Amino acid sequence: MEQWKSYQKAHQERFLQELIDLLRIPSVSARSEHKNDMLACAKAVQTHLTNAGADKAEIFETPGHPIVFGEKMVDASLPTVLVYGHYDVQPPDPIELWKSGPFEPRIEDGKIFARGACDDKGQFFMHIKALETMHACGTFPCNIKFLIEGEEEVGSPNLATFVKNNQALLKSDVILISDTAMLSLETPSIDIGVRGLSYIEVEVTGPNRDLHSGVYGGAVANPITMLAKMIASCHDENNHITIPGFYDDVVESSAAERAKMAEAPHDDTEYAKDLGVKALWGEKGYSTNERTGIRPTLELNGIWGGYIGEGSKTVLPSKAYAKISTRLVPNQSSKKITELLIQHFESIAPEGVIVKATEHHGGEPYMTPIDSLEYQAAEKAIEATFGKKPIPVRGGGSIPICALFEQELGIKIVFMGFGLDSDNLHSPNEKYDIQNFYKGIETIPYFHHFYAELKK
Amino acid sequence: MEQWKSYQKAHQERFLQELIDLLRIPSVSARSEHKNDMLACAKAVQTHLTNAGADKAEIFETPGHPIVFGEKMVDASLPTVLVYGHYDVQPPDPIELWKSGPFEPRIEDGKIFARGACDDKGQFFMHIKALETMHACGTFPCNIKFLIEGEEEVGSPNLATFVKNNQALLKSDVILISDTAMLSLETPSIDIGVRGLSYIEVEVTGPNRDLHSGVYGGAVANPITMLAKMIASCHDENNHITIPGFYDDVVESSAAERAKMAEAPHDDTEYAKDLGVKALWGEKGYSTNERTGIRPTLELNGIWGGYIGEGSKTVLPSKAYAKISTRLVPNQSSKKITELLIQHFESIAPEGVIVKATEHHGGEPYMTPIDSLEYQAAEKAIEATFGKKPIPVRGGGSIPICALFEQELGIKIVFMGFGLDSDNLHSPNEKYDIQNFYKGIETIPYFHHFYAELKK
Repeated sequence: MEQWKSYQKAHQERFLQELIDLLRIPSVSARSEHKNDMLACAKAVQTHLTNAGADKAEIFETPGHPIVFGEKMVDASLPTVLVYGHYDVQPPDPIELWKSGPFEPRIEDGKIFARGACDDKGQFFMHIKALETMHACGTFPCNIKFLIEGEEEVGSPNLATFVKNNQALLKSDVILISDTAMLSLETPSIDIGVRGLSYIEVEVTGPNRDLHSGVYGGAVANPITMLAKMIASCHDENNHITIPGFYDDVVESSAAERAKMAEAPHDDTEYAKDLGVKALWGEKGYSTNERTGIRPTLELNGIWGGYIGEGSKTVLPSKAYAKISTRLVPNQSSKKITELLIQHFESIAPEGVIVKATEHHGGEPYMTPIDSLEYQAAEKAIEATFGKKPIPVRGGGSIPICALFEQELGIKIVFMGFGLDSDNLHSPNEKYDIQNFYKGIETIPYFHHFYAELKK
Repeated sequence: MEQWKSYQKAHQERFLQELIDLLRIPSVSARSEHKNDMLACAKAVQTHLTNAGADKAEIFETPGHPIVFGEKMVDASLPTVLVYGHYDVQPPDPIELWKSGPFEPRIEDGKIFARGACDDKGQFFMHIKALETMHACGTFPCNIKFLIEGEEEVGSPNLATFVKNNQALLKSDVILISDTAMLSLETPSIDIGVRGLSYIEVEVTGPNRDLHSGVYGGAVANPITMLAKMIASCHDENNHITIPGFYDDVVESSAAERAKMAEAPHDDTEYAKDLGVKALWGEKGYSTNERTGIRPTLELNGIWGGYIGEGSKTVLPSKAYAKISTRLVPNQSSKKITELLIQHFESIAPEGVIVKATEHHGGEPYMTPIDSLEYQAAEKAIEATFGKKPIPVRGGGSIPICALFEQELGIKIVFMGFGLDSDNLHSPNEKYDIQNFYKGIETIPYFHHFYAELKK
């Protein structure tokens, strides 16, 4: 294992340079104009897998963006680790807030700034470099498979079909995902859960054309005002979500679990200061970590309607829109919540407007039991390289495909993420600390080692 | 007067062609990229004035867009009519809803479709053609001055200074404005009032950067949600405006006035059908015509925040914005209401966000007394050319500069508008009926005639 470390130390600058090149590809899955960039990025991943020692590296077409599959089968008697990651990234908007181009990676203060730096190019790429390390040193504790998709940021619409149709190809013992954060390098942690997601878009139509707000104002329902009223009604005065049935299936955390969560280092004052807000906000009766970890939420992701340009226009618009997503916890069903949301918005449509709600994408919540072999292997790996036992925490984000993996492949998932909450995922100036990148590459082979040990 | 009519009949096709050429100039005052178009349009107006027989036609620079002044002084003993109009137009957005280019005038079914066709190029241009008519026929009942500005659609920020500094130049007996609508060619009407306006923009800032809605969602106030709550609180369940003090200075119309208003032909079912809405909306206790004429209103003109592109993005945005305007009735003060609005939005800012409200522009309400000489001249002119007496109505729109005119120049304003409510002002597919254009050109010299008669 010392050999792994020496190899990595000798090559780490090249590893970083390779990541920088990968980050230059604007693989934005949500935007159709990036279709060719998506393909270019898939091909780059394929090449990296081959160069790192994979026996097989293939691109599978889908009705959307391609999936990259790779494998290094050492010995059929060894356990197999399936690495899942995604090469697509969020749109970089708002572009004007980036200090440097989102696809022109910049290194400053030990961090690499670029869209996808942490989510998820910088993280899945650590696994390719871990493969290279084990390949170069000739020591493979496990077989390895890679499933790197291009549609995670748009809800993985084609991955389920691929998984269902390729069960033999994907056959493994555990799924390892690096697409989450840890508390810090000093306080390592492991996400034991990800939230589910329901994402809808609401369209409110008032008059059949934009109107002069002086001539018609006051006599016709304004779709922006009506949309605002609907949004405002989604949270009550305690910031509970008011949609009927929304909390019905939520598994409440026990007092013991909540007490354990409260042990994780957290300072609301620091948290607020980092975000530049004078006060935090959230559901009454829950702490910040609980609000982002064990409670479902409803957030407005976008809103638009009427005149949004420079200056002023006295228009009473025909339409207004909102993008709205909820994060779900065990045992909520994304499908059921999406139906509830759509039904709710259509049913509360004020007189004088027509409301149409449609589904964007969704995903189920997922939990890794801390008494599982999979969790313990990750715990030992992190302890080995960080020098301290990681804290189990509940992550706020979503990896829509997790529940399906467990269902179709019958195996457990472990989240071994090396990002930080401050990495500006989905925001301008996304970054990944270079030390975290290197620490991840160092830790991954240990996971393979301990997982093989524990499986014996 | 028969001579006027013959001249107009002989030249009406050229009049229309000239209007079409004027409509080709994209004179959008709100957009800085149209600065050169604005100047080109001012020059075109200047040339038209000269060609129509004006003794003087000048362009006055302002810190914003230029003002065109023209005059035909026939005899100092005659009364002087000052025509006010504006050559600037509203932005054409949303462009995609236009059936033909907003600046590529199209004639269909007796209507001319283009941005500015009715508001106000098509209307002020009638006065230039009326000047030409009187000039060609050598019969001028009054002197004529023209004040055609380029900033009406953005609140006339530089006109007040111009008026204050040029009182001698603008000295007149009456101001005649064609920038309003009539009920129909069959039911002519005269607007006896325009509403005032207060227009503000609200900026809501939550966290100091866009955040991942999974990682932070539920723990930080979402600026879109907070903005929606503020907007939703602006109207109560009876659609009264809830801003404290908003109605304080409203002069309530008498039962007699309301009874007279109710005589104007109006059908709510037809009105709703034309707009494509199942139900109308508005302040409880008032009819549609009252809601748009004698009552103040608050409308959302635009809203935006977060991700508004294709697909989905799970962002909790840093900022959200709204453009909000109110229409005011006598005796409300635009300045006072703007202050109330700004103060209100800043004071109701929910914890966790910062709200900044700024003024866009405003204007005072204005009323023309129906027993005034000015109104009577317009009434007689319309009766002469339409064959029936016009109905006095209260218009919903605003002409911000009216109150200032009266204050600075000490003269009355009369609104002789030839548009229709269905002209799609400020909306896609703005149009002006060619018959209305011709009828306006025919009627205007009659106004000069009757005004001179009544002034004797």
